[in-house]
Parts: sequence; structure tokens; C-alpha cells
Amino acid sequence: MLKIMDYSEFSVRHRGLFQNPEIEEQIRRMIKDIREKGDKALFAYIKAFDKADMDNVEVSEGEIEEAYKKVEPDFLRAVRKAKQNITKYHEKQRRNSWISEEHDGILLGQKITPIERVGVYVPGGTASYPSSVLMTVIPGRVAGVPEIVMCTPPAKDGGINPYTLTAAREAGVDKIYKIGGAQAVIAMAYGTESVPKVYKIFGPGNIYVTMAKRLVYGAVDIDMLAGPSEVLIIADNKANPRFIAADLLSQAEHDPMASSILITPSVELAHKVQTEIGSQIEGLPRKEIIRESLSKMGAVLIVPDIYRALELANEIAPEHLELQVEDPFRYLGFIKNAGAIFLGEHSPEPLGDYLAGPNHVLPTGGTARFYSVLSVDDYVKKSSIIYYSRQGLEEIGEDIIKLAHVEGLKAHANSIEVRIREGANSVEVRRGEER
Amino acid sequence: MLKIMDYSEFSVRHRGLFQNPEIEEQIRRMIKDIREKGDKALFAYIKAFDKADMDNVEVSEGEIEEAYKKVEPDFLRAVRKAKQNITKYHEKQRRNSWISEEHDGILLGQKITPIERVGVYVPGGTASYPSSVLMTVIPGRVAGVPEIVMCTPPAKDGGINPYTLTAAREAGVDKIYKIGGAQAVIAMAYGTESVPKVYKIFGPGNIYVTMAKRLVYGAVDIDMLAGPSEVLIIADNKANPRFIAADLLSQAEHDPMASSILITPSVELAHKVQTEIGSQIEGLPRKEIIRESLSKMGAVLIVPDIYRALELANEIAPEHLELQVEDPFRYLGFIKNAGAIFLGEHSPEPLGDYLAGPNHVLPTGGTARFYSVLSVDDYVKKSSIIYYSRQGLEEIGEDIIKLAHVEGLKAHANSIEVRIREGANSVEVRRGEER
Repeated sequence: MLKIMDYSEFSVRHRGLFQNPEIEEQIRRMIKDIREKGDKALFAYIKAFDKADMDNVEVSEGEIEEAYKKVEPDFLRAVRKAKQNITKYHEKQRRNSWISEEHDGILLGQKITPIERVGVYVPGGTASYPSSVLMTVIPGRVAGVPEIVMCTPPAKDGGINPYTLTAAREAGVDKIYKIGGAQAVIAMAYGTESVPKVYKIFGPGNIYVTMAKRLVYGAVDIDMLAGPSEVLIIADNKANPRFIAADLLSQAEHDPMASSILITPSVELAHKVQTEIGSQIEGLPRKEIIRESLSKMGAVLIVPDIYRALELANEIAPEHLELQVEDPFRYLGFIKNAGAIFLGEHSPEPLGDYLAGPNHVLPTGGTARFYSVLSVDDYVKKSSIIYYSRQGLEEIGEDIIKLAHVEGLKAHANSIEVRIREGANSVEVRRGEER
Repeated sequence: MLKIMDYSEFSVRHRGLFQNPEIEEQIRRMIKDIREKGDKALFAYIKAFDKADMDNVEVSEGEIEEAYKKVEPDFLRAVRKAKQNITKYHEKQRRNSWISEEHDGILLGQKITPIERVGVYVPGGTASYPSSVLMTVIPGRVAGVPEIVMCTPPAKDGGINPYTLTAAREAGVDKIYKIGGAQAVIAMAYGTESVPKVYKIFGPGNIYVTMAKRLVYGAVDIDMLAGPSEVLIIADNKANPRFIAADLLSQAEHDPMASSILITPSVELAHKVQTEIGSQIEGLPRKEIIRESLSKMGAVLIVPDIYRALELANEIAPEHLELQVEDPFRYLGFIKNAGAIFLGEHSPEPLGDYLAGPNHVLPTGGTARFYSVLSVDDYVKKSSIIYYSRQGLEEIGEDIIKLAHVEGLKAHANSIEVRIREGANSVEVRRGEER
């Protein structure tokens, strides 16, 4: 099911941003509706789409306590270990505001301020994604965001998945709302009587959620627009085919559109990997999704050498890049476009999904050419700090005036002139000087 | 023309993102057209909108040499001084990739890689904006972007404004194309025979340019969606009314929708500023735009004290915030939302537009609550680096497996199991263990 071909037969086609006018129109109507009618409209959508009938969408303290009784101790241990690793890594990303001293007493700086309130969307319903909770909430906590709210879809009975709830509490979410899909994104973007307006929205979702994020972008900021997951593995003839097969399979089980690609100079390895996939897939419950994904989006590309493989990888710009080669660090400087880089045979992609420490929210669909892995930077804003002394302003005053005139902005020039020009105590005088 | 009112009468209304279905539909057609027909469609739009008839849109070396003969020496001096200050400030923002050593030989890191090719849009035609060129190109150069291309509208004769051209050369633009408006943004976003595809687009523009940037967002990244310019000045009774008036006037001359607001506890200062505006405006060529802007979007708000003024400022989240008060630094920690902060009476906003050093590309329309001033960070991507040893993976292996099972992703668990479980040399064994 995983086709082996020469790399020259392979053409890189980036999926880019999906288009769907019908869904777009539907979401636009929902936005208009919820902005105008608030909770009234929101609750109607919850009833229609989340199939839950509720008058109170906020999760209570009691519900969270109940959830703790339902989850296993080894789950809580795993979540706490993950929190510890994710927190430790993201703390290394934290930046301070800075001030730099220039000549003449001039002070210039950059102020780092956490966004005041952010919202996190976590998919759910039947499935549960505690790892999504940790990866989108913890960097915000590390950044010092004062308030983090979360929306996640309720089950038909109005309850929330206990793994998601306990992960949210462990991560430090302030308020949790039982809302799913586009209506959750819209409610957080504009605010309703029961959902506070946030300034940035994080988290993955289906095409409705993604479209809603795209349409509210500008009114609020968003983390990114995510597509199907991808792994690209570069391996040499020393690599372990069982490990590679397992990693390709793990990516493919996400979704039929997920992409799993192996690039190697070793035809022998390519065939061993195919065999391993054949044997390992039998033990996997999602084998139908995997088969569809591997045959549709998967490939094994044979290249002359590792450097050609790296060039291809830079063109593909994968979400996850694994280097299962000898001395992988020697190739690090050749990697230009990849969301996360996994080095060596003991760094499988699922390690990064859960516990390694770095974030698992990554650019997909070739957007690693311009987007970054989610980080603490995404939860803060930078502002410039400018303090000039009179001497400092005088030194460059005439240059500012010149550029202002070139741009046809005389009032800009005037704001400098009234400060630095001798006896310039009225614009009449200033104009006199200009004659 | 500048109304004085108590702050309680003032309601903060963020303009947010403009909507215009007609323009949106028009731009969508242009995107489809240029993506399908490339240069053929692009040149037709240039002829239609830029009113220029050209078969070659790239600026030649000769044209740049000609431009140098046309501009004044004091302009070049000002541009070079500005370049020096902007470069020096932005170099302080540059960040290195890092690797951190963890236990058991684990290495985690963050790789910083410049975006491979970016595009800059510079408005023009009759007007010229050399400062826009410097502010959008220099941070890219500091970031190490290998290729920076620029589009700017040609005059009817197909020529480019010499101030813009020389600024582009001074800033270090690689290629310049004579294309204006939405067609320029679309050409850079998707590429045509004569315009290379870029991965991120920077720069201001009219509503057509802004709409195009919004619609190509996702296919490429964009810097931000800019609205009308804004200044908010907080001043005490010691402040100089002439300076304040000049700064309000300089903001108002940009555009009738530009917003100039003064907040002060001093009614006396408010009246002096009004008088000063009345006398200074007479000397200004753009007085009609200024009058419209000040009466439509301007205001003087009287507050009980500076702290109340700061609260209002945080709610308004202005693009430019001036603190013309005694000991302005004592208030820095109270400022949460502002694009750029100008401290003291010798730091007028036009200083920041041209020569102070920090960037003048700033969030508008209240988006300073979640957007940052443009910086070197916007020209690079961050990628995670993950290297685990076998011991490191074994230590957390069972936790990963647990979380993978909770999320229903057995193949994820399998990719860990094949690595760490003793004698786990086939999935049969693994499944055996699970029974």
C-alpha cells in the first residue's frame, strides 16, 4: 500500500488552505447571528450541532471533581510528567522586556506583555485530546497570560470527557465551556453573555472550526490554520525498518488525508519497511484509515544520497521531520523548512506529540516555510519603547524633517520643528524660515 | 474642531477589520485569474489599474542609477542615518537557535531559520514612502532573509518614484517590480512568469491591498492587516500644549479616518491645545484632511488622574501612545496595550515614523491587544529540535503509551513499544502483553 518510487517521479504539491464556499457562507451566517443575538443564537447552535440541550455552558467545580474520580492514576501521572516537561521547555522560550541605552541619554526598548485573555479550543465529544489541552494552555501560563478559557464539545448528555477535564485542571485553565465546533470559536471571538471575549484563539479542529478561525481572524488573532498531519522520515541503510514502519503507521492512523513519506538512498531499506508495515498494521485497530492514508498520501522515495533527501524535505516543508541516519546533527544546518525535527532512532514523532517537551502544534501543508511551531511568543505582544532627549532629537531632527517633506507630510515635520527650531514659537515663523 | 469632553461620555469602539463584499468578490476573481493565467492576467490588471502599459515589470539597474541623480543629497543622508538607526535597533532583536542539555543525554532546542523569500509592498504612484521601504526591508536583512523582493506602483509613464527606488537600494532589496495594488500582492503570493512566489508579504496599502493580503493569508503569511493610523497622547498640566497640538495635527494629516486623541486631567491644558491647533493648522497644506479627521475621529478626554487615563489607553489599545507627563517611566508598567510607547516631550510620534530606530509598522484598530510591532521575529521561523537517547525514551515511554491509548491512537503507542519493550520484535507480542 506504500508505493516505492524514484524521487524524480514525485511532485511536491502543497495542499495549502482549503476552500469551501458553502461552509464559508454557513459560518458567516453563524457569526452574524451570534454577534447579534449572543447566547440566544449560541445556545440554538449548541442544541443543533453539539446535540446537547443546556442552559448553563460553564463546567462546574463538581464536574471537575467527578472527572478526577473517573480517570486512572497512571493517566494523571502521565499528564503531570508531560506538564513538567512541556513547562520546563517552554520556560526556556520566555523573553524579558529590554531597554537599551543609546548616546545623549536616549533609551530604546522592547516591552513584552502577555495577552490579557486567550481562548483554547479542544476537540472532543467521543474522542479526548488531553495532549491538545496541555500544548495550548501551558505556553500561555508560562507567558503569564492572566486568563485562559477553554471550549470543548459536550457529549449528548451535556457531560465533558473526564480526560480532557482533568488535563485542563492540571494545565491551569481558568474557565471551561461546553461548546464545540465553529460556534465555540465565534463565541470566544466576539463574546456572549456567558462566554467572555478573548483576544487570541488557539487549538485544532475540523474544517468548520478551521473556517471559523479563518473568518474571525482580524477581529482576534489565531494561532494558525491547521491541516492534516504529516511526517517525513529521512533514513539511511543503517536505520531500523521496524522503527520507521511504526512511525509511518502512527502518522497514517490520524486521518485518511495524513501524509507519511520515507526518503532514503537504500532500496533494501525501502523494501524492509514495506514488509514491516505489512506485519505491524495487522495489530492496529485503525488499519482501514491507515491503509487509505498510506496508499493515498504515503510514499517511499529513493534518492541518490541524504543531501538530495534534505533538499526534497525543504521543498515539502513537513510538519514533522525524522532523521533516522548516522550522526543526524551533521545535517541540522541543511534543514530549512520543518515544523519539528526529530533526530536519531530514539526520537519517534509520537514522543513529540506528548512528552518530549516542545510543542506539538505545528505548521502543516507546506506552511513550515513561513510558520513556526507554537511557542510562548504566541501568547505575548511586543511594544516599542522610545525615549529621546532634546539633544538626541536635535541630532536627527533635520533628517526627520527632510523625510517628512519627501513623503508630503508637513505636519510631521512641524511636530519636530516646534521642538528643535530656535524661536520657533509659531508656525508663521516656521513658514518664514522655509521661504 | 477637536471636541473636549469628560471621559465618561466617550465610548471605545474598535474599528476592527473592515468588511466589503464587493471588493472581496472582485479580489477573489483577480486571484483566480492571476493563478490561472499568470503574467497574461497580471499585465492586464496593471494596464487597467496602474494605468501603465508595460511588457517588463522589473526595475533595471539603469533606472536605479537614474533615480540617484534625481534625489537630493540631504535625502540620501537622512535615509542612511535612518538605515543606521533602524539596523542598530533591530539587531538587538536577533535571536540565536539554541540547544539545551537534559538528563540522559537528551538534547532539546529551538532552531531559528530565516524565511527563504519575502515580498514587500510599498504604496506609491504620486506619493512616495521611502520610510515604508526601510521599515519593512531592513528587519528582513537583519534576520538573514536570503531574498527580498518589492512591488510598488508605477507612474503612468511606467517610471517609479526616485525616493522609493533609492531607499530600496539603500535598504538592500534584491528585485523591484513595477506593480501596484491587489495585483502586486496576488502576484507575490502565487508567483507568475515574471514575479517570483514569496512566502510572506509585508507592507501597508489601501483597502484593495489589505483585502488581497487577507485573502492570500494561509497560502502565504502576511505581516498584519493595517487600518487608519492612530495616536493617543496622555499629558499632565506641565505638558507643552504646542508640542501636543503639533503631534495631534501630524497624526490627523494622514487620512480623514486617522484618530488623534488627547487624555488629560487638566482642563486648562485641553483649552490651550485647542488654541494651539487653531494657530498651527493654518500653516499646514493638508488642513482640510486634518479638520475632517480631528472633528470625526479626534477628541480631548478629561480624566480625574493619569491612572484613569492609562486604563482608558489600555482599553483603546492605540497604535501610538505618547506619555507627555512628568517622570513617564513610572507609568510604563501600567501600559498593557499599545503598539509603540513614546515617553517624554522630546519623543514625538513622527520621530518613530522615520529615525528613532524601532519599527513603524504597528497594530491599529485596537489590535495592539494581540498584535505586536513588526520585528526581526516576523522574518524567521522557529522549529523544534528533539534528540532523545534510549534511556531518555525508556524513562517516559510508558507515559507516552498511556496518553496514546487515552487518545485512541494505538499506532502511536506502537511506535514507542517497538523501541522500548523487551523482546517486542513483532506486534503480535505487543498485543499478547495487552491481553
